[in-house]
Amino acid sequence: MSKPNHAVVSIIMGSQSDLPVMSQAAEVLDTMDVPYELTIVSAHRTPLRMVKFAQEAATRGIKVIIAGAGGAAHLPGMVAALTHLPVIGVPVKSSNSIDGWDSLLSILQMPNGIPVATVALDAAKNAGLLAVEILATADENLTQKLISFRTSQTQSVLNQVELLQKQKNGHLHKK
Amino acid sequence: MSKPNHAVVSIIMGSQSDLPVMSQAAEVLDTMDVPYELTIVSAHRTPLRMVKFAQEAATRGIKVIIAGAGGAAHLPGMVAALTHLPVIGVPVKSSNSIDGWDSLLSILQMPNGIPVATVALDAAKNAGLLAVEILATADENLTQKLISFRTSQTQSVLNQVELLQKQKNGHLHKK
Amino acid sequence: MSKPNHAVVSIIMGSQSDLPVMSQAAEVLDTMDVPYELTIVSAHRTPLRMVKFAQEAATRGIKVIIAGAGGAAHLPGMVAALTHLPVIGVPVKSSNSIDGWDSLLSILQMPNGIPVATVALDAAKNAGLLAVEILATADENLTQKLISFRTSQTQSVLNQVELLQKQKNGHLHKK
Amino acid sequence: MSKPNHAVVSIIMGSQSDLPVMSQAAEVLDTMDVPYELTIVSAHRTPLRMVKFAQEAATRGIKVIIAGAGGAAHLPGMVAALTHLPVIGVPVKSSNSIDGWDSLLSILQMPNGIPVATVALDAAKNAGLLAVEILATADENLTQKLISFRTSQTQSVLNQVELLQKQKNGHLHKK
Amino acid sequence: MSKPNHAVVSIIMGSQSDLPVMSQAAEVLDTMDVPYELTIVSAHRTPLRMVKFAQEAATRGIKVIIAGAGGAAHLPGMVAALTHLPVIGVPVKSSNSIDGWDSLLSILQMPNGIPVATVALDAAKNAGLLAVEILATADENLTQKLISFRTSQTQSVLNQVELLQKQKNGHLHKK
Amino acid sequence: MSKPNHAVVSIIMGSQSDLPVMSQAAEVLDTMDVPYELTIVSAHRTPLRMVKFAQEAATRGIKVIIAGAGGAAHLPGMVAALTHLPVIGVPVKSSNSIDGWDSLLSILQMPNGIPVATVALDAAKNAGLLAVEILATADENLTQKLISFRTSQTQSVLNQVELLQKQKNGHLHKK
Amino acid sequence: MSKPNHAVVSIIMGSQSDLPVMSQAAEVLDTMDVPYELTIVSAHRTPLRMVKFAQEAATRGIKVIIAGAGGAAHLPGMVAALTHLPVIGVPVKSSNSIDGWDSLLSILQMPNGIPVATVALDAAKNAGLLAVEILATADENLTQKLISFRTSQTQSVLNQVELLQKQKNGHLHKK
Amino acid sequence: MSKPNHAVVSIIMGSQSDLPVMSQAAEVLDTMDVPYELTIVSAHRTPLRMVKFAQEAATRGIKVIIAGAGGAAHLPGMVAALTHLPVIGVPVKSSNSIDGWDSLLSILQMPNGIPVATVALDAAKNAGLLAVEILATADENLTQKLISFRTSQTQSVLNQVELLQKQKNGHLHKK
Repeated sequence: MSKPNHAVVSIIMGSQSDLPVMSQAAEVLDTMDVPYELTIVSAHRTPLRMVKFAQEAATRGIKVIIAGAGGAAHLPGMVAALTHLPVIGVPVKSSNSIDGWDSLLSILQMPNGIPVATVALDAAKNAGLLAVEILATADENLTQKLISFRTSQTQSVLNQVELLQKQKNGHLHKK
Repeated sequence: MSKPNHAVVSIIMGSQSDLPVMSQAAEVLDTMDVPYELTIVSAHRTPLRMVKFAQEAATRGIKVIIAGAGGAAHLPGMVAALTHLPVIGVPVKSSNSIDGWDSLLSILQMPNGIPVATVALDAAKNAGLLAVEILATADENLTQKLISFRTSQTQSVLNQVELLQKQKNGHLHKK
Repeated sequence: MSKPNHAVVSIIMGSQSDLPVMSQAAEVLDTMDVPYELTIVSAHRTPLRMVKFAQEAATRGIKVIIAGAGGAAHLPGMVAALTHLPVIGVPVKSSNSIDGWDSLLSILQMPNGIPVATVALDAAKNAGLLAVEILATADENLTQKLISFRTSQTQSVLNQVELLQKQKNGHLHKK
Repeated sequence: MSKPNHAVVSIIMGSQSDLPVMSQAAEVLDTMDVPYELTIVSAHRTPLRMVKFAQEAATRGIKVIIAGAGGAAHLPGMVAALTHLPVIGVPVKSSNSIDGWDSLLSILQMPNGIPVATVALDAAKNAGLLAVEILATADENLTQKLISFRTSQTQSVLNQVELLQKQKNGHLHKK
Repeated sequence: MSKPNHAVVSIIMGSQSDLPVMSQAAEVLDTMDVPYELTIVSAHRTPLRMVKFAQEAATRGIKVIIAGAGGAAHLPGMVAALTHLPVIGVPVKSSNSIDGWDSLLSILQMPNGIPVATVALDAAKNAGLLAVEILATADENLTQKLISFRTSQTQSVLNQVELLQKQKNGHLHKK
Repeated sequence: MSKPNHAVVSIIMGSQSDLPVMSQAAEVLDTMDVPYELTIVSAHRTPLRMVKFAQEAATRGIKVIIAGAGGAAHLPGMVAALTHLPVIGVPVKSSNSIDGWDSLLSILQMPNGIPVATVALDAAKNAGLLAVEILATADENLTQKLISFRTSQTQSVLNQVELLQKQKNGHLHKK
Repeated sequence: MSKPNHAVVSIIMGSQSDLPVMSQAAEVLDTMDVPYELTIVSAHRTPLRMVKFAQEAATRGIKVIIAGAGGAAHLPGMVAALTHLPVIGVPVKSSNSIDGWDSLLSILQMPNGIPVATVALDAAKNAGLLAVEILATADENLTQKLISFRTSQTQSVLNQVELLQKQKNGHLHKK
Repeated sequence: MSKPNHAVVSIIMGSQSDLPVMSQAAEVLDTMDVPYELTIVSAHRTPLRMVKFAQEAATRGIKVIIAGAGGAAHLPGMVAALTHLPVIGVPVKSSNSIDGWDSLLSILQMPNGIPVATVALDAAKNAGLLAVEILATADENLTQKLISFRTSQTQSVLNQVELLQKQKNGHLHKK
């Protein structure tokens, strides 16, 4: 984990096959200039690494953990059990899952006492944004970046609206 | 909303009938001495109140919003769309819902761009804990309270273990 | 929105990616010579545009709104909350949805007080027909067009019946 | 059916056991002074009565049909197939249904060509409101009644807000 | 319908798109030399043809009806409501269905009083076999054909067993 | 099994706890004067009895088998695999089942080659009626009984219609 | 844990509330004279106890672990990840679960590499029997006990058959 | 079945089409040098072969049975009913199944008295590992092989971690 002393968000995933989904969280953090680390921590195949990771995360300066996994996804919940940091869970629709229902329910339905902040199936981008929102509660600079992001997101829809309007004037619209 | 200048967490719910569930979030915040406000904001019956609430929450000093709703639960997602604050969504298993699946999916499956930190069905207690975890990322005092909470939660299980062990010595265990 | 003074149906959708589905509603209205408008209104990325759209629709002469969205689909229900016009909801099976269940339940399971007239998954054509049926309750001309549409729809099945019958006489049928 | 020459909405249901749910649609129409009829039409046990009912409804002056049924609920869709009037379907969670999924899907998932305006499970009140919204597209008087209904519905939530606020000032709120 | 005076099984389907599935029922009947007819009867697009078909089927000498449909599949249940003949329902997983759940539940969950003998999703072959089993209750010749069919079906599995055994002796099996 | 030489329908169930549901099939057969037997045959706890039962049923003069079971319900399908008689499957919503989905799918989703005529969850009455419909394909007397049953079933709905009409004239109907 | 040097099966559960279900596993082991221990190990509230338990189980002489949990049930899978002993998972339908689907999928859908032998919802009795079957693969004495259990289980059904037969001779059976 | 006197695990499947999935169990046993047999036993198409297979398995020296099947999957449960050996069930997502739910529930939801050790959908590899774990309860040599397998499985994840770390140092990581 490069520059662990700087990373404030840790993106972990249960398997290399989760990388295409989970790297979308990394892209959001890149855009917002939030230092992060990204690695593989398997609850089932490297359980002791997971315990160590979760116990030391706060000490290493991590503020928020993003954990993605598929199938019977135990990584987000187990990490949450071993740290007091907020853990964001990303259910990943892996190839062997039952249409994603297994990962979704395994991550979301945590018992009272140990919360996991769950986002939509494969929604690693939203996990990244949520991490930024959490950090922004104490960072005015990040807050401004979030507000800018929202503004440009809105503008991009308005641009689509205008484009569609022009196309309709030609074809689609009833005269 | 009493002392709104002090509240840092806002607990809102779509209907008075959600109060028995949602007040469990308030109890957690009481325990942790986190100032909060609690009110009803209906996405469908008071949409303009919802817009105003969401737009002004950050300015009023709110840091985290906890929103609970049942059925086609639009409150958490719509509030999230109108603020850059982290929004924690609590799916409530209301009387008319389809076993809770409708509120769960309506809150969890947000499109990329607008995250909602979803907790388990009726898990308002976890929503309260998650709010504290978020605030604790910038508050060492709250971090210590969370660590104490976790320790005493673990101890309470260990007490049950011991009690069960004593009972078993009498009856259950095979000699 | 071209000729907004004339449009009586407004077709809106949460995202450009819903256009291939939602344009089927437009085709029905074209066929029936019902003036409409079609645009993108995102509940989550352009919430204020949505509020304005919904509040002004009736004043602009709109009689029926058709709203399509995928995932945690809040657009139909939120628009319905902000207007007294009938709102027809089209659940769209978007790429990230859980087989369409999320959009279906998010649109259908509205609380009492704010109805949304929901049609089948991706059934924008039926949304267009339902809009015409609604307008036809006060328009004898449209009623005649609906009756013609039904007649020709029935005839098209009867033509298939006949064609199949001819084919069977050659191969399929047991002699 | 008393005063059938006056009724403009027809409320039908597949079985007497649906009456407690379906009479909520009647109550809405009573409130709004919309003349209606209410009767039992079973798709499966009185299919010919259903055909006759659906074919004659428009001629009898009916403008909107509300049809509720449970289990494999064919009544709304079959009536819709036999009339050009808008048909509102109410899935009823009957005792033998699989948690309501069967009636919900049997009513909602109509093929293209024959729409049914489906409302939430057991949401007969919303079916009544939707019928009024449809009629109001050509009735300024009804439109005003709908707007009043919405206003008083909003006010009733605001009253709950105030009441809750008073209670909180005593107990719930963190000082 | 060729030789309707001879056909004893009627295979009907809601749409031409169901033909690839439903023709598998015809193939079984061909194999067993059971005379049948096959046609399209749409509950929603040709409701009166459906009523006529169902009412006259017994008089025309039909003994068993096989009805396949997708989505909100009302054809099998409505035909069953209009005849005392046994009706076999085939849920078809059409392109717009929700993974087949809608057709499955719309056909299976009939209310008491009107049974439909439902087979598995897309299992038209089994519908054909069930029709033969029903006719065989009063036809010793057909019974013998069924017994032969079962014997050769069993034999075909045993042949696969033997083939697999030979292959394993080369590769798969641990020595 | 008393008078086994006379019984033509065999009602079997996997467990004594299925009796309240399955005896409704017996009541239908009693009404129609169809001789039957009724017993417990557990696929899992008495597998050899099941094999013997299924293999001998046809020889003993049984024409139709009705088999009910809950949970992972293997009885209907296994009996069907061991006889060429038509087997009607009744999914029973037993106390340990997952809302009946397990028994429903275990009975319905039979592979091609071995059909089971499945009825709705707990719909033993319909299983009885379906058995009669099957026998009636070769029994004019039974056909007449079925037609009478249908007629009186229709009449009983019409009586409810009339009763409801009288009540409405007093209260429910809008004047 | 009394006589841990003797126990060969370890029954663990995530919460005291699982005891009524899980003690059924203990009863089976009592009946079969298999020494066991029974305790609470919470994956989420006592994660380090869980790690220690799982790592030491084999050394302590445990041969099979039975683990029951509800909701997002991570206990069976995490214990399986930390031991090479066979782990039997019992999904428990806890009060906050979504009809048991969450615990079922969280336990069953383990990734390749770490199996959990899952039994039916709340089926702790079967978990006990499965543990005995596993031990019996190397214990002729236990094998005989299993065979006796099966024989008496079969006999108990046959007794019900006889009892039912007697009752039917009086009432139920058609003469 | 070659060298049946040596095989201690029997891998059976309902259909040749299950072979690509089920041969993954064989590969695990090959790796671990556990002698096995592999064959097709169809519960529905070769029921008597299944009875014979299950009754004789223990006598032939089989210690564990792995049974895979799709759709209404009765093979694992029926074999379990006919033997006291532990039976591992593999739900196979066959082409006609409803997304695998039918096979999953048909295998998992066994009634009390007859357990089936169910693994995840298509998880034949885990079935093989579970068989080894069961045999290892009385075989120190196999235990060592399992421990080695786990170690190398963990190491393979750690290798991925390292590789990812190197890649990140180039691109992904925020500097």
